[in-house]
Amino acid sequence: MKRGLFITLEGNDGAGKTTMAKKALEYLQKKGYRAIYTREPGGSMITEKIRTILLDPENTKMDAITEAILYAASRRQHLVEVVLPALEEGTIVLCDRFIDSSLAYQGEGRKLGMDAIEQLNQFAIQGCMPDLTLFLAIDEKTSQARLKARDEKKDRLELEEEAFHQAVRRGYEKLLKKYPERIRAIDASQDLEDVEADVIDAIEKVLHVQS
Amino acid sequence: MKRGLFITLEGNDGAGKTTMAKKALEYLQKKGYRAIYTREPGGSMITEKIRTILLDPENTKMDAITEAILYAASRRQHLVEVVLPALEEGTIVLCDRFIDSSLAYQGEGRKLGMDAIEQLNQFAIQGCMPDLTLFLAIDEKTSQARLKARDEKKDRLELEEEAFHQAVRRGYEKLLKKYPERIRAIDASQDLEDVEADVIDAIEKVLHVQS
Repeated sequence: MKRGLFITLEGNDGAGKTTMAKKALEYLQKKGYRAIYTREPGGSMITEKIRTILLDPENTKMDAITEAILYAASRRQHLVEVVLPALEEGTIVLCDRFIDSSLAYQGEGRKLGMDAIEQLNQFAIQGCMPDLTLFLAIDEKTSQARLKARDEKKDRLELEEEAFHQAVRRGYEKLLKKYPERIRAIDASQDLEDVEADVIDAIEKVLHVQS
Repeated sequence: MKRGLFITLEGNDGAGKTTMAKKALEYLQKKGYRAIYTREPGGSMITEKIRTILLDPENTKMDAITEAILYAASRRQHLVEVVLPALEEGTIVLCDRFIDSSLAYQGEGRKLGMDAIEQLNQFAIQGCMPDLTLFLAIDEKTSQARLKARDEKKDRLELEEEAFHQAVRRGYEKLLKKYPERIRAIDASQDLEDVEADVIDAIEKVLHVQS
């Protein structure tokens, strides 16, 4: 293939994106592919600094639109410094969250509008869309149970904002309808082995098309 | 008037924007208006932090698109924290550079495209356009001479990037044609007293329309 495959993993918190990305990475590397796992900010100095502003609890006056724009800036810089150089070397990039997260979380969750967030992020990524997006679909209950097992504190926050997470879920469902060729939904409430098998299957299909 | 007047000052470096903004501020305050002078980052903590990223010479890997997006984030936050609260109190806001600077400098100067930069910044400002924009038009030679008098070091940089500054000037000229009602061009190569008289005259006209 000319350039590496660009695969993104998406879904609500607790869907198992990071676990599945690492399983996929292991699988690909065992098969002899050059592959990396990354997520924003991904070690870029500029992106780390943007992230610090986004996460600093002192920044209580952060406007929702400023926040969306800062995420787009972080996405752009991570793409330029980390993702694109890897793809140009022919490396497969497994990226934990990308444009669809902004569309679902900020467009639908924060109600800024998916079209506005799409326009903003298209300027940031300049057409560099993923070749494949794995949407790990999980129902509210299973996601809550997994997050609870992980971190009691986070779970309280999640519970408080149930409407927000439902909106995010609706956002992902809209994206699935809009991009049926790019986004592959995977039932992430299955046993981990079955989720992993579906993930590998989806990646294999794209590998065969590209090779 | 319902809300304060929003006046922006634009032009190439060395056109005298800051001097004229301060003259205008003095004039308005003497006449009994509540008026403030501001410029991004304008004392907002979040905007100051964004500015630090933009100006840090360590950030050599800054992509031009990331830069444009960060300016839009800074503009949004400054608008929300500084400009809008003042306008809502009925205060006249004199803002040194705003959306037109991004259109001229990044859209035309950095060749990112004025339409793309307009879209990005419209998302940031959500329709809050200035009531009046004073474009201090100055030819290359006069601007260079003024900058030279101000700072020898800056002048070398300016000279090195003449093509860039000419592109910025072209950008402002395009904007003048596109928004003839909002933007008032003022010949800034005149004597300071005459520039000031033109600035006051333009502001007075808008004050009369609004009152």
